[in-house]
Amino acid sequence: MRTIEWDESNQILKIIDQRQLPAKFEYIYLDNYKAIAESIRNMAVRGAPVIGVTAAYGMVLAGLHSPAQDPQAFMADLQMAAKELNDARPTAVNLPWALKRMVCVVEGKGLSVSEMKAALLAEAHAMAEEDIRVNKAISKNGAPLIADGDTIIHHCNTGALATVDWGTALGVIRYAFEEGKHIHVLVDETRPRLQGARLTAWELKQMGIPFDIISDNMAGYFLSTGQVQKVFFGADRVTAGGDVANKIGSYMLALAAHDNAVPVYSVFPTSTVDLSLQDGKQIPIEERDQEEVLALSLKGQCVVPEGATARNPAFDVTPARLITGYVTELGVVSQPFSVHYPQLLNGREG
Amino acid sequence: MRTIEWDESNQILKIIDQRQLPAKFEYIYLDNYKAIAESIRNMAVRGAPVIGVTAAYGMVLAGLHSPAQDPQAFMADLQMAAKELNDARPTAVNLPWALKRMVCVVEGKGLSVSEMKAALLAEAHAMAEEDIRVNKAISKNGAPLIADGDTIIHHCNTGALATVDWGTALGVIRYAFEEGKHIHVLVDETRPRLQGARLTAWELKQMGIPFDIISDNMAGYFLSTGQVQKVFFGADRVTAGGDVANKIGSYMLALAAHDNAVPVYSVFPTSTVDLSLQDGKQIPIEERDQEEVLALSLKGQCVVPEGATARNPAFDVTPARLITGYVTELGVVSQPFSVHYPQLLNGREG
Repeated sequence: MRTIEWDESNQILKIIDQRQLPAKFEYIYLDNYKAIAESIRNMAVRGAPVIGVTAAYGMVLAGLHSPAQDPQAFMADLQMAAKELNDARPTAVNLPWALKRMVCVVEGKGLSVSEMKAALLAEAHAMAEEDIRVNKAISKNGAPLIADGDTIIHHCNTGALATVDWGTALGVIRYAFEEGKHIHVLVDETRPRLQGARLTAWELKQMGIPFDIISDNMAGYFLSTGQVQKVFFGADRVTAGGDVANKIGSYMLALAAHDNAVPVYSVFPTSTVDLSLQDGKQIPIEERDQEEVLALSLKGQCVVPEGATARNPAFDVTPARLITGYVTELGVVSQPFSVHYPQLLNGREG
Repeated sequence: MRTIEWDESNQILKIIDQRQLPAKFEYIYLDNYKAIAESIRNMAVRGAPVIGVTAAYGMVLAGLHSPAQDPQAFMADLQMAAKELNDARPTAVNLPWALKRMVCVVEGKGLSVSEMKAALLAEAHAMAEEDIRVNKAISKNGAPLIADGDTIIHHCNTGALATVDWGTALGVIRYAFEEGKHIHVLVDETRPRLQGARLTAWELKQMGIPFDIISDNMAGYFLSTGQVQKVFFGADRVTAGGDVANKIGSYMLALAAHDNAVPVYSVFPTSTVDLSLQDGKQIPIEERDQEEVLALSLKGQCVVPEGATARNPAFDVTPARLITGYVTELGVVSQPFSVHYPQLLNGREG
């Protein structure tokens, strides 16, 4: 299952509409970069790795539709598209990372406009393929952290749906399961958008991995009663100091695990690391529309009193002190991240 | 607004059906103790203090409907009813506390059957009136802990609806608000039954106290970004060591507050203290039907994949080390609870 696919004959990006899952499995067809920016903003496509690659195809479409004849005007159009795509969501660094990479592949290379268009498409394709390869390497690196019989709490969705294919944290769990390990997953439902109850539960069901859904606020109970051996989640941005911005609720989950000496692993490709930031407090945290919190209903009946308002930060920051290890495609990084990650990048053991 | 009211001419207990709020304000009329046990079990009535008093009226009804002619047979009927009422929900100690008190008022007193019936009714009335008096004393004691301008996170519902009237933790907030303090409440929605989003939001709206609803997993974000000055919640059972069983999610909330040096107050009548237990691990934790977690829908659409299962512990235990102070009708108890609470009971400063 690929979350996004390029249709070359129609020059259209086809994506799974994740807002409809698991009730409906539907594709959306995007033929211009503004529609791609909107699909990222409205979370038809979500998950840090896949929004990076989706934005890359947004740059392809911006190029294809640019009326510019000369390279300079073409670059100006690309820059404009990059800005709009970048502004779609602020927290995951994979978005600016992918856009920068797309600009770099054509900027100052002395290419003609048609060569630039071809280069953009080739680079987007390369990033998509790379994402799958990287996820498999991540999963292989992380799988030894899981023991036969483990019960694991997993937050949000980090499966195939959060990437081009295969997944990060959920990919690790899948890899260990396919090795024959017995695993039980407690799936944080992940309010307010319920990526856990909707998407992770759906993916686990398809893979045949046993699980139970829990409300996010129940994790502490299961951790403090000795029923959980590991906590796994992804990352939207990791600082040089090892602080991890991830889906709202990750911080409280990590605190509860730490309070009970249960290891916490954050799983991500190295494209999620932002070495320009030292401290998690510097990461911009997206606050989304309050309707996402207020839209809740039980048995078809609206829950909140009329006129009630809500707050809706979409991410929080888990400080490095609460994270046991970081799983990347290059290897597992132990603390201190600020020391071991640069060593890993330089080809030494993390 | 009283949550429960005795209709003497019809010998019926009238309760607000809290499952319908805020969409509908409806009463349920209960004319036998089994219906009362069921209303506690299905949470038409909920909140530790009020389920105690409701069960007391259950004993009144058990007595009124007992066909027994002699005191011994009457006591046997009462004991049977007490057992069934007690088994309705296991965690809140107010339930066995109230039932014990109802038995004590008639047992071994040499009363006739009709005298016992009268004594039961008088005791239930006394407990209901006492609950309101006690809550007002709690609120007065707790109000000085709130400063003008505070933003407070509140978990679950501890307002008038959780008691006969007025409330415990929410009563403290109300008292401080009525003193003229500016307060903003971040209302934990309190999955899975959403007592915060449904009941606390509704009560705050009626009182005119400003608030925003948040998902439970967002508390850590607001605490770690310096936007919260106090955390308040109730209690379902407090051990001699000061551990607090309360609505699921309280433990993770207290951890997040503690990690950011924000004070945490648990608010309850002394009837919630169970001196027979030292350690919170000894408190029985109710696990409710998984449907309460799975019933979630967004925009009328079922969220979880077909066949998914869930876990549903209804309470967790917050260890004493995470609690700054305990607010009771006798005064505020600081740590160590095991030392200061007995002193307070003996009439000395807590």
